[in-house]
Amino acid sequence: MILTVTLNAALDITYRVPRLEPRASHRVREVAERPGGKGLNVARVLGALGHETLVTGFTGGPNGDRLRALLSEVTEEGPVGDAFVAVGGDTRRTVTVVDEASGDATVLNEPGPQIAPAEWERFLDVYGELLHDATAVALCGSLPPGVPVGAYGTLVRAARTAGVPVLLDTSGEPLLRGLAARPDVVKPNSHELAGITGTTEPLRAARLAQRRGAHAVVASLGEDGLLGLTPEGVWRVEPPRRLAGNPTGAGDSVVAALLSGLVEGLPWPDRLARAAALSAATVRAEAAGEFDRVLYEELLPGVRIDRQMAAV
Amino acid sequence: MILTVTLNAALDITYRVPRLEPRASHRVREVAERPGGKGLNVARVLGALGHETLVTGFTGGPNGDRLRALLSEVTEEGPVGDAFVAVGGDTRRTVTVVDEASGDATVLNEPGPQIAPAEWERFLDVYGELLHDATAVALCGSLPPGVPVGAYGTLVRAARTAGVPVLLDTSGEPLLRGLAARPDVVKPNSHELAGITGTTEPLRAARLAQRRGAHAVVASLGEDGLLGLTPEGVWRVEPPRRLAGNPTGAGDSVVAALLSGLVEGLPWPDRLARAAALSAATVRAEAAGEFDRVLYEELLPGVRIDRQMAAV
Repeated sequence: MILTVTLNAALDITYRVPRLEPRASHRVREVAERPGGKGLNVARVLGALGHETLVTGFTGGPNGDRLRALLSEVTEEGPVGDAFVAVGGDTRRTVTVVDEASGDATVLNEPGPQIAPAEWERFLDVYGELLHDATAVALCGSLPPGVPVGAYGTLVRAARTAGVPVLLDTSGEPLLRGLAARPDVVKPNSHELAGITGTTEPLRAARLAQRRGAHAVVASLGEDGLLGLTPEGVWRVEPPRRLAGNPTGAGDSVVAALLSGLVEGLPWPDRLARAAALSAATVRAEAAGEFDRVLYEELLPGVRIDRQMAAV
Repeated sequence: MILTVTLNAALDITYRVPRLEPRASHRVREVAERPGGKGLNVARVLGALGHETLVTGFTGGPNGDRLRALLSEVTEEGPVGDAFVAVGGDTRRTVTVVDEASGDATVLNEPGPQIAPAEWERFLDVYGELLHDATAVALCGSLPPGVPVGAYGTLVRAARTAGVPVLLDTSGEPLLRGLAARPDVVKPNSHELAGITGTTEPLRAARLAQRRGAHAVVASLGEDGLLGLTPEGVWRVEPPRRLAGNPTGAGDSVVAALLSGLVEGLPWPDRLARAAALSAATVRAEAAGEFDRVLYEELLPGVRIDRQMAAV
């Protein structure tokens, strides 16, 4: 079983309005609710790829109940097991307002519930138990208030002690603290990389992140594809063509591809090719956690993989 | 007991963000949730004025549960009784995004749950029962999907048959259909008046609305105060000074003032003076359904009331 951790899970709400105008009152044409948070998107993609997956993290209150109910309905894409730890606070919402005239999305992220020290301790126990049966673990997204900023360091160390490969996908101080615990893979985007290294040159920034402790760094560069610094070499990976669409969830599909390739024992170039194709096929899907399977299978053989010189 | 009807009640969510930028992702600084919908605001103001009030309409799903829980907490302002009819759909949310830099508010209104014919029938039974003990009734706001467009006509007729004075506060076709059933009072704003009469001249528009069936028309003209066409005469009413602030809920306070004055047997000029002062004191409060009591009592004696010529 592949485990994904989403400490700050969310109930994702999407509103479609004819046109978003600041200061105006809008009639929402269509409301959609989905289980949200990076680790849940990763789990849904993994499920669709045929992998048994389990999600954990914190949920609570009416929004948490709704999230779990929606999660239990996600069956056609493959089963996703629910191992969330219940907390007293209410799970956060995210509201995405889609302007139908332009297609643009405006996002409002609630901060998330306050996690009590005892709730964090209970999570650590549950996480330790779940690691026994995990073939890989992904640690995804921001930390809710109350969780120690070094949380991902603790979770990476626990996974490594248990011999479970661990991928970290977060940003800022939580990423820096997690890197120090030497995760197997980190997957920052170029913005997140610049945030922790102070440089916007992707290869240089990825190299710096790797020196801080990651065994492999896979940087997602948007339409430019991926840059992978791995124990097998350094690779630039690009989908056969650039696809416009909704980039939300593209990074989560990269994580799912890397994890699935890892547990299947694929060489790194094949993992990266899968990640590039799956990410591009997600951009063309309706929502995060979904991808266009036909497009994915069409793109995969055409992904360009270029080995880079080892020295920078 | 004063009864307020809110067929399309809402869970009002307010987000404060440093600055609202379309197409950006925002971290919400503060989340507030309140029971929402015009009739609920009216009831809370009535409660604060010392009147026993009961709210009815439809609620359902997790948002409805949350609304009722929040309503039960509204005690310091006076008791508001809950006589909502439960439905299968989920109560709508409204999301108001306050830009802290400018103070501007952007509002997103969900459409509301689909009401089944049997649910509407059940509501009519409950409403008929509640009218037995009502001294006045206010019918407030938009209609949720599934409720007949002539709903307010039906509810006005039932109130009149039961001998209960009825005030109608809605817009568009539901207002036109309600007017035909001859409510005691309607309280449109100038925009709503123009929408049903085709003229933007307030006195002319109010006169047209009165001819369509209302015994009295009280038009709220924003900072310009109120225009009242009543059986006792036609009045222009202005607060002693113009107050800037949040206009949300000002109209609901007008409704509460008119109802309270009605059941207390006040002459029309006194009801209108109360409405103008209470509305102005609401503009300076944090949220709809609240008002600044000290300011209200200070403004009330200074309200200017000018009798207009009867003929137009």
